[in-house]
Amino acid sequence: MASEQVKVIGAWASPFVMRPRVALNLKSIPYEFLEETFGSKSELLLKSNPVQKKIPVLLHGDKPVCESSIIVEYIDETWSTSGPSLLPSTPYDRAIARFWASYLDEKWFRSLRSILKAEGEEEKKAAIAQVEEENSFIEKAFIDCSKGKAFFNGEHIGYLDIAFGSFLGWLRATELLSGHKLVDEAKTPSLSKWAEQFCNDPAVKPVMPDTAKLAEFAKKIFAKPPA
Amino acid sequence: MASEQVKVIGAWASPFVMRPRVALNLKSIPYEFLEETFGSKSELLLKSNPVQKKIPVLLHGDKPVCESSIIVEYIDETWSTSGPSLLPSTPYDRAIARFWASYLDEKWFRSLRSILKAEGEEEKKAAIAQVEEENSFIEKAFIDCSKGKAFFNGEHIGYLDIAFGSFLGWLRATELLSGHKLVDEAKTPSLSKWAEQFCNDPAVKPVMPDTAKLAEFAKKIFAKPPA
Repeated sequence: MASEQVKVIGAWASPFVMRPRVALNLKSIPYEFLEETFGSKSELLLKSNPVQKKIPVLLHGDKPVCESSIIVEYIDETWSTSGPSLLPSTPYDRAIARFWASYLDEKWFRSLRSILKAEGEEEKKAAIAQVEEENSFIEKAFIDCSKGKAFFNGEHIGYLDIAFGSFLGWLRATELLSGHKLVDEAKTPSLSKWAEQFCNDPAVKPVMPDTAKLAEFAKKIFAKPPA
Repeated sequence: MASEQVKVIGAWASPFVMRPRVALNLKSIPYEFLEETFGSKSELLLKSNPVQKKIPVLLHGDKPVCESSIIVEYIDETWSTSGPSLLPSTPYDRAIARFWASYLDEKWFRSLRSILKAEGEEEKKAAIAQVEEENSFIEKAFIDCSKGKAFFNGEHIGYLDIAFGSFLGWLRATELLSGHKLVDEAKTPSLSKWAEQFCNDPAVKPVMPDTAKLAEFAKKIFAKPPA
């Protein structure tokens, strides 16, 4: 089973698609990347994820696995002896990693998008303050989880590193477009150092989108219709 | 660690709170239920879940675990030798169970609430049609997952049974208030039989809220201000 062909259906700009790609790179599992065209859905995607019709989908042989964080757990469990473990080793630490990953998806990424969607300076200022408050929670979580090591998961990139790290492209693009630094040495020193180390990891570098290119893309999808 | 005192902070009407309670009952782990007052948050809740400030919280000794499905995984992993396994045994089956549990929370329960929040007959009819379409997906998932056994998880109640089963009280209350059956033998025969078996399980019965009482509660929280 573990030796069957692996494919990822996705798109370059999606932070959720980055997750399985980083996980597969960390586990040294070769895969084919099947890029969807923005604004349309391939037959293969609709067949593989008929309920949600969303990327990413991991195809392992003929079996589709959907939802980015679920795919990362699947990769960790399927290739448990290749590369580092992505989930922490104790039930409690796993629960904490899952909690923060869920917080990032349910809360933090929505707040980040609110900066790009904000209409007027007041709304933008409030959205920035919201993200900065949430970043301070995550900074504290990093200190608790990492226990002095480089990553949330300790010495190696793990599940929660992947969950947050895959948003870093969008974080940098949002900083560029809003003209406001959200994660830096002054505000969140631990996250700032972590982000640099995450982005420089050889499993991450080849799949991290270019900030300027992502900012151009974001400008297009968040463009407001002329008043 | 497994022998430390267990408490659940929750409220009787919350489907999310039902999840850890059913899981603990299945594992025969005694616990103290700390009931929150509707509309206010206790000091203990705010201290235990300072980020989300939401129920349920599982307190295991002095360690809080938050988010209902994460708590159920924590219970399964911590008391792995007590009672049946709640997660399926293969990575692929686990990914499928997690996918549907996430679908129920992200999509299905919102659709169900739309029936109660609907304004006018047209809106209500559309909301009912939406839930019935989603139920047909879940009926198919049940057939795939259960492989002819009584539960999604096979012979015993598991993670996905708990995720969906904990919504059955709200499903029944919504049927009562809307005067429309959503899960029955004609529409979803497998789910209809499954629901009966789930509700009759000794781990479920003591924590399943009474339909009429829940309907009264739902009427209050979804009450529209006078026009």
